Amino acid sequence: MARVVVDVTLKPEILDPQGQAILGALGRLGYAGVTGVRQGKHFELDVADDADESVVARIAETLLANPVIEDFTVRPA
Amino acid sequence: MARVVVDVTLKPEILDPQGQAILGALGRLGYAGVTGVRQGKHFELDVADDADESVVARIAETLLANPVIEDFTVRPA
Repeated sequence: MARVVVDVTLKPEILDPQGQAILGALGRLGYAGVTGVRQGKHFELDVADDADESVVARIAETLLANPVIEDFTVRPA
Repeated sequence: MARVVVDVTLKPEILDPQGQAILGALGRLGYAGVTGVRQGKHFELDVADDADESVVARIAETLLANPVIEDFTVRPA
């Protein structure tokens, strides 16, 4: 059993109102050193040892991310 | 300017209905090799070069994660 991590982020050209809200809150809380925040999704999948990375990439593409507006990365945990 | 990634996941003992829903959908789509899915949040922060990791950890603890039910990791992008 292997654990694989899929991180899904909005493409850079897509507006991210959640990240903007966090950035605004950080400013009000006094954290001036942060100049940008982007929010995405994080998935941890337990896959069979014989499953290869292309299967996880297909899962990410079809179910976890919307490839029109989102990018994703696949990496071992 | 450095980019730091904060990943927030539910603690293992906390139920994850979103992950369960994804796991059910994967089964119906024919991906039998996946035995577990947990969903979390992924944040990318642009921080000043002189900000150290403890500042980002404090931000994660107070604003990005709920430490009662969630764990978080901080790593450079």
